[in-house]
Formats: sequence, C-alpha cells, structure tokens
Amino acid sequence: MHSLQQIAAQLESLEETIIFKLIDRAQFKQNSTVYKAGKSGFAENPDASLFHLRLLYHERMDAQFGRFCVPEERPFNSDLPQPRRSITMRDTGLQIDNYDAVNLTHEIGESYLKLLPRMCRRGDDGHYGSSVEHDVYAVQAIARRIHYGALYVAESKYRGDQDTYAQMIRRNDRCELMQHLTRKEIEERIIDRVREKVAYAQGRINEDLRIKIDPESVLTYYRDYIIPLTKEGEVRYLLQRPSS
Amino acid sequence: MHSLQQIAAQLESLEETIIFKLIDRAQFKQNSTVYKAGKSGFAENPDASLFHLRLLYHERMDAQFGRFCVPEERPFNSDLPQPRRSITMRDTGLQIDNYDAVNLTHEIGESYLKLLPRMCRRGDDGHYGSSVEHDVYAVQAIARRIHYGALYVAESKYRGDQDTYAQMIRRNDRCELMQHLTRKEIEERIIDRVREKVAYAQGRINEDLRIKIDPESVLTYYRDYIIPLTKEGEVRYLLQRPSS
Repeated sequence: MHSLQQIAAQLESLEETIIFKLIDRAQFKQNSTVYKAGKSGFAENPDASLFHLRLLYHERMDAQFGRFCVPEERPFNSDLPQPRRSITMRDTGLQIDNYDAVNLTHEIGESYLKLLPRMCRRGDDGHYGSSVEHDVYAVQAIARRIHYGALYVAESKYRGDQDTYAQMIRRNDRCELMQHLTRKEIEERIIDRVREKVAYAQGRINEDLRIKIDPESVLTYYRDYIIPLTKEGEVRYLLQRPSS
Repeated sequence: MHSLQQIAAQLESLEETIIFKLIDRAQFKQNSTVYKAGKSGFAENPDASLFHLRLLYHERMDAQFGRFCVPEERPFNSDLPQPRRSITMRDTGLQIDNYDAVNLTHEIGESYLKLLPRMCRRGDDGHYGSSVEHDVYAVQAIARRIHYGALYVAESKYRGDQDTYAQMIRRNDRCELMQHLTRKEIEERIIDRVREKVAYAQGRINEDLRIKIDPESVLTYYRDYIIPLTKEGEVRYLLQRPSS
C-alpha cells in the first residue's frame, strides 16, 4: 500500500494528462451532433450517439487487453469481452473485491458533456471522428483520476484513522464519512495548481495555430465534478470496506 | 486547397500533440517485452508483439469509424474492415487517388522503436497495457504529421512552381525532386522550435512526480526521421501526380 503522499503525487501527475487531453479535444469545435442519439451514421445501434459508440468500441478493445483488471480503470460500459491476456496485479492493499462498487462512470460521462460547451468553441467543423476519439481519451483520463483517488485515498485515510472510520462505517453514516474525509485546504490547493497548469501549458501557444482553452472551464470542472466525485467514490469504498 | 502557410501552421500545431503524447508514453519504462513477438499473452496471433496487436485492434476500430478515409490518416495495417459510417471529405485539392502511394507507416513504426530507448527509462515496470496504449497514440500522431506534410506540402509546392516540378516528374527524377523541395532553413527552424517546445512543456514539471524526457531525443527524431520521411512522402506524391 502506498502512503497518502505517494497517492497524492500520482493524482497530481494525472493532472497534466487530463489537461493535455482536454486541450487536444478543444482543437475541434463542439460538434454537438456527435453526442446526439441516432446521429452516429452506424446502421447497427441506431439509438446510440457517435460518442457513446466510440467509447463502447474502445472499451471492447481495452477489455481484451485487460485494462479493467486494474482497480482504478472502471469501464463506462457493461457486458464487455473477457481479457485475452492475463494481468498480474501487484498487491494493491485495497480491501474490497468488487471495484465497481465505486464505479462513477455514469456521473463522469454526464459531467463531461457539461464541460464541453464551456471548453470548446461553438459550432461544427465536421471533425466528428477526431472529436470523439479525443473525448474517449479525456473521459478515460478523468475516470482514472477519480477512481484512483476514490480507492486509494479512502483506504489510506482509513488506515491512518482506523477507529473513527470503523465506527462511521458500522453506523453506515455517509454524511459523517464525507465530512471526516474532506480536506478543504487540499481541495483549494489542487484547484490553484490546476489553474496554473492550464495557463502554463498554453503559455507559449501561437494562437494563430492552436486553440486555447479557458483555465476557468477546467478548474470549475475540477471543483464541481472531479473533486466531489472522487470523494463520493471514497465514501462508497469505505461503506463497502470491512470495518473490523 | 490551403496555402503553404496554412499547411505549415497545421504541421506546427501537430508538434504539441506529438510532444504531449511522447511525454505521456515516457511516464512508463521501456518495457521492451511488449515489442517482442510471441510475448503478447494473446493466444491467437502468437507471432505478434503486444504493441503490434494493440495497433491492429485500434486500427480495426478506427477503420469502422472511417478514419482512413482521411488522406493524411494512413493505416499501419492492411485488410482493415470497411467504415460503418459515411465520411464526407471536403475537396482536398490533392491530385492523386491512391493516398497509400505515400504510406510510410512501415518506416514510421521502425523509427519509433528506435526512439523509445532514447526517450524512456530503461527497465520494466509491468505497465504493458498502458505503454502500448500510449505507443499507439504517439505513432498515430507522428504518422498524421508525416502524411499530412507529404501530401499537402508537395501539392502546394507543385502549384507554386509548376513548370519545374512537371519537368522533374516527367523525367521521373527523384533526386532532383528531393533537392528542389528541400528547404534547409525551414528544417532548422522546426528543429529549434521542437527543442524549445519540449523544454517548455516540461518547464514546471515536479520531477518527484512526473518523468521528464530529454529534448534531444525528440529533436533528433524530428531531424532523422520525421522531416526526412515527410520529404520522402512528398517525392512519392509528386511521382504519382499528373504533370500536365
């Protein structure tokens, strides 16, 4: 089991990945057609959007390569194929078996669709395939950050304060748990850091060539979704965790 | 048809994408096992490496979404499925029909395998799935840059100097063509710019959290492979192009 410091370091390192992928997505316009059901152009799955189909096809591939054997890699889709290779996980230290108890991909997908109009330029540039390709990279990076935090931060906090958490778990008190695991000053620090990173990542962009995103759109997304969903995942983890 | 200036701008914008994707790959060690035939763990395709299988599965998905209808998106694999949606390309202005006449993916794949040991830390960290996932993103970004340059730069140069190029094409003189389309001062400028961009992209990385790559590894790769392969593609394009 990693220390809380190592876990925080991993979460911090995922910030650049999320920011890079969002900037890549924002090179294309909103292209709202790709999020509409029945507009994918695929004859099968007439009810799905192009975005949902791309995510489904991508996850079917990922599943065969064993991605979802990794605790923090939770899929957006169910009924995925079995892995074609065996994955050896080192001991994770996690104390639940069903990692999908913290699966927040539904909420992540919904929240991402709200981020897009704040981050991307309005309109339609016809680059539908590229848009959904980068959407998948972005939502996977966001989901990895949230589930990694949910699982490992929760376990680490539990170990650092066993008696208190065990009591709250036995009382099944999600409000108390949420309050006890919240660290407001750390949340503020993350948000400040994300603002700086987005500004820096675009500090020397030639705006004739490359589209800039508004740092506020990303940090608002961190504040309103990434951080709260991570904490929601932590609560779900703890409520599943054996408390004795 | 875009102007040479617009095309150069698009190529410049792809530099950030390539650099971001290489930095993401370099967060994992070399993991040389994933490039070895017969070590994929997949029961089918026992002769392929995990890298080659990931690229194959990814391209099978991409093909169904219509990626390879786009001139600069040339596949690494053949015998891919047909698109499941129709792609409407705006008039590209290109004057050849078989875009695979400039397909340099074999050379790109080989060159990328030479880049990896210069860019990634030695050794094995067990993150095989993540390594090949990021390999695919990186080689696709590199291939897009090379094929985009090969097709559009060549057509634009032809239009700017029709008589000279038409004569060289009729003489089928690849050496003369290569010489005539080479702009040494622009190549130098690209290399300087890539050095600066890699340095800047990592300028505020906390090295306790995130791995840095050596800017030299990327700019050497640009100098020795990306630029020469783009020019090779330009020559191939011109030799296929009608010259009257």
